[in-house]
Amino acid sequence: MHNLDPLRDVTAGEVVAPYLHARAADFLRGLRVHGESGSDSAGADEAARTLRAAARRISGTLHTFRPLLDAAWADQLRTELAWLSGTLALEQACTSRLVRLVDALSRLSSTGGPVPAARGSEGPGSGTGSGAGAGTGLTVGAARAGALLERQLTLARTRAHSAALQALGSARFHAVADAVALLASDVPLGPAGSAPAMEVVDAPAAAAERRLLESVAALPLTRAAHPYNSDALALAAGESQDAPWHRTRHLLRLHRYASEVLHTGGEPDPVLYESARALDRHRDAAEAAGAAATAARTPRIAPATAYALGVLHADQRHEVEAARFAFQHAWRRATAPVL
Amino acid sequence: MHNLDPLRDVTAGEVVAPYLHARAADFLRGLRVHGESGSDSAGADEAARTLRAAARRISGTLHTFRPLLDAAWADQLRTELAWLSGTLALEQACTSRLVRLVDALSRLSSTGGPVPAARGSEGPGSGTGSGAGAGTGLTVGAARAGALLERQLTLARTRAHSAALQALGSARFHAVADAVALLASDVPLGPAGSAPAMEVVDAPAAAAERRLLESVAALPLTRAAHPYNSDALALAAGESQDAPWHRTRHLLRLHRYASEVLHTGGEPDPVLYESARALDRHRDAAEAAGAAATAARTPRIAPATAYALGVLHADQRHEVEAARFAFQHAWRRATAPVL
Repeated sequence: MHNLDPLRDVTAGEVVAPYLHARAADFLRGLRVHGESGSDSAGADEAARTLRAAARRISGTLHTFRPLLDAAWADQLRTELAWLSGTLALEQACTSRLVRLVDALSRLSSTGGPVPAARGSEGPGSGTGSGAGAGTGLTVGAARAGALLERQLTLARTRAHSAALQALGSARFHAVADAVALLASDVPLGPAGSAPAMEVVDAPAAAAERRLLESVAALPLTRAAHPYNSDALALAAGESQDAPWHRTRHLLRLHRYASEVLHTGGEPDPVLYESARALDRHRDAAEAAGAAATAARTPRIAPATAYALGVLHADQRHEVEAARFAFQHAWRRATAPVL
Repeated sequence: MHNLDPLRDVTAGEVVAPYLHARAADFLRGLRVHGESGSDSAGADEAARTLRAAARRISGTLHTFRPLLDAAWADQLRTELAWLSGTLALEQACTSRLVRLVDALSRLSSTGGPVPAARGSEGPGSGTGSGAGAGTGLTVGAARAGALLERQLTLARTRAHSAALQALGSARFHAVADAVALLASDVPLGPAGSAPAMEVVDAPAAAAERRLLESVAALPLTRAAHPYNSDALALAAGESQDAPWHRTRHLLRLHRYASEVLHTGGEPDPVLYESARALDRHRDAAEAAGAAATAARTPRIAPATAYALGVLHADQRHEVEAARFAFQHAWRRATAPVL
């Protein structure tokens, strides 16, 4: 993974700066397209995605290669980019969460075959199973649960949209845009920035890699490799058991961006792409499960609605478990020969 | 798997009769212990299990080797044994279903780690996840759901217990017991029963094996081998998608009993033991999921209770999926060299 040839005879600044220039240009392009897209919401979404991807990469690079840069400047810009990414990400997150939950509900309540006749005569005390009756009950509950989630997440999305529009019109945003525009041509380096690249760029990247490896080593990967372990469904522990995986997702991102700077000429590093995707799915499913649980706490909902939301919650927690399984598989395959 | 040596120089009746004699003796022993166990409920359970295991094996043997036996007698005894097994099995099924569901609920609502602080300030429209709040809500709902299931399944078990006691005191039961007592010393054979074993016992066993292989071939094993396929959660299709697996479970049983008659000297055949266990788990989980769905249709339950039952239902359907995964694994391993 460490091919140091391109680092010969150049300074550290000459390695890091082109990457930051290119990402700053991406950011500005996303910003321009977003401004021009007007009522074209697909175009605006795409532009917002470009903008956020560039902001994440700039921010990650400022973090990892901070020892080579003007530290005070890097910290300040990073804070502002985090605010901007966070604000812009919310609307998209609400949309994709709603799509994920509605898709899951339709999968759960679809028949997937000939519908068996409902067993209406079965009393509640009979103690025997009735998939057909469960299905019918679930279809009604699923429709109501879908409507409830749509209402709640659409409201949240509308709020996020307003917040994003407000952010894009704020003085704070214009200051970030100006800072990124400067970055497109000039990167404020620290003293180490003019040192030979071979001597100084490897240490920050290695530190990012080490933090990632430590984080992965702390994950219960052996357990995750055993399918159907039902770990993710220990619901009361939900947030605390997810946190190490979310942290790993963040560290994997930083590692991949550092790799873009040093090894892949700014292109996405394909080696850990599958692993990163699995952790994205993990995050999405965990948040969707949380949204289902939140909806179930809405006052005065019907029991059938609550039941469907319970099924949905468990389904998304299964997805969390499945994503962990996929991660350990992808990670082991990617890191099998060397890391 | 076909070692025909013990079949040399004996008649078909001399191969099948000793097995039926031995199982009839097991049946009578179970019956005697059951009568003597009185208030010792563990002893009575054990005796009922012995009785049912013997009844299933006699019934299966009468079915598979019907061509060698007095067909009218075999059919009649089989009908009566099916009635008896069914009646005796219900009580045990209610007990184990309740244990399975209560265990699952306690696993689902256990923290499995430090409990994160509840986020009480979060409104229902925020759209962000809260595992902690979900956990707290689930704990209350899980306790109520557990109480509801306990009430319903205990009632069902009490009814099953009365029905079993009534059956054991009935004239119909005494007629079955008399027929089995005769079977312990004398098996009514058909004309083929006196033919050389090598010529006639293999065909019925091969037919049972062929029916099993056809049934397994029709199962979506490739799909089941892919973990986390979420197939079992297509709830509306529950019963119809489970049926082929339940049928396979029944045919696997018949095949294993035929194997006990011909190849393992009456001892359980270890080759397909794991596969059989997986299909038992499949059936248990499917019925437990059905019981959770039935409980959720109880009028006037609280939404939190319905929510917990929804989580429980999905959890048990996940177990169904896990059992299918386990079956395909065990089956492929057991049948890899030869079947």
